Amino acid sequence: MIPVTLGNADHDRSIPRGTSLITLSLRLFAVENLRTARRYLKSLDREFPVDDSLFFTVGKHSDMSGLDDFFRRVAEGDDAGVMSEAGMPGLADPGNIITAEAHRRNIRVVPLTGPSSVMLALVASGLNGQSFAFNGYLPVDTPGRQKAIRDLERRSAGGQTQIFMETPFRNMKMVEDILAVCKPGTRLCIATDITLETEEIRTLTVAAWRSEKPRPDKRPTVFLILA
Amino acid sequence: MIPVTLGNADHDRSIPRGTSLITLSLRLFAVENLRTARRYLKSLDREFPVDDSLFFTVGKHSDMSGLDDFFRRVAEGDDAGVMSEAGMPGLADPGNIITAEAHRRNIRVVPLTGPSSVMLALVASGLNGQSFAFNGYLPVDTPGRQKAIRDLERRSAGGQTQIFMETPFRNMKMVEDILAVCKPGTRLCIATDITLETEEIRTLTVAAWRSEKPRPDKRPTVFLILA
Repeated sequence: MIPVTLGNADHDRSIPRGTSLITLSLRLFAVENLRTARRYLKSLDREFPVDDSLFFTVGKHSDMSGLDDFFRRVAEGDDAGVMSEAGMPGLADPGNIITAEAHRRNIRVVPLTGPSSVMLALVASGLNGQSFAFNGYLPVDTPGRQKAIRDLERRSAGGQTQIFMETPFRNMKMVEDILAVCKPGTRLCIATDITLETEEIRTLTVAAWRSEKPRPDKRPTVFLILA
Repeated sequence: MIPVTLGNADHDRSIPRGTSLITLSLRLFAVENLRTARRYLKSLDREFPVDDSLFFTVGKHSDMSGLDDFFRRVAEGDDAGVMSEAGMPGLADPGNIITAEAHRRNIRVVPLTGPSSVMLALVASGLNGQSFAFNGYLPVDTPGRQKAIRDLERRSAGGQTQIFMETPFRNMKMVEDILAVCKPGTRLCIATDITLETEEIRTLTVAAWRSEKPRPDKRPTVFLILA
């Protein structure tokens, strides 16, 4: 499991040397996005032999049939890397399709350390890190999203921090809905551009946010609430 | 937020260079355990001036009163680091006491990248990484623990991976209770000694574990279930 940088973050900032070295030693990959993966490997080492490496794409809708050859090679002894478009594979992405199959085939899975926007947002938020839930993406229609936010706020009243995401171009809509729906005293953390120069992570009550007018527009953002 | 290695893991394996450099630039710390923190800083750089640095201890039961001086110094412009005993501060530990107060005082919080046993266990488990909950420690008495496991298994039936921990010397008791209580088809990941040479991460059904006799005895372990 090979973490990659978030956005255009500097490698030194968030990728340990051990993770880079293992990444660069591999020639077999299961990736979420072929272009991003090749570009990332080249950014780690301009000389990386992408053309002599083998890439299998794992999409949201991919079944395992295209991966038979991938697993055959691993069974024959090739080490393989799993890479997401950004951050940790298998967290907030379908990378676990590969690892679940690896466990079924009794193949050893090794998680390498690197950045996860979800985790970094949580530890910087000041919200409860001893009980929390990650909920992925919420519904995109307004009534569905507002209902989901209300449900999460209710669940967080037991002390469990609720974490979720949105596609960047819908962030402003998400903020509006949270501020419309949540109680004034509920704490909301908006964590934007994590590990980048433009990183902004702030936790305020919903009441305080209402006069702050947050602007996470079109930037990768993690949302966290705790009633 | 300064992550440290898990156990005696090699720094190169899990601490990015950017994280080390920032850590070594600080002279003001809020730490979970004074001895561990001083030892860790010395391990990053034998010449680290621990005696010229200022450490404040943040315990489970500590209130903020002892930290007035800490926050006064930060308000005056000193950068400060928050360190846990192992891994990421603010995740599975009370580090968020500090960050919550920082947000209230409008102090910028920056999360540095490093290892988190909870996250690494999740991404290696093959279980759902798009919906998951971390539940910290379960009750230590057998009936209480068995009830908690049953509740988590039930909750995981909706597709949300349930993650929890145990104090290492009680790991065998935890395994016994999971295998006694859970359904045969429920998947259980036992993730032990993450990032160490002795790392073992395996996901099997409860039925399969019953004949495997797992031995995470006295080693740091994360448990994950998904019905």
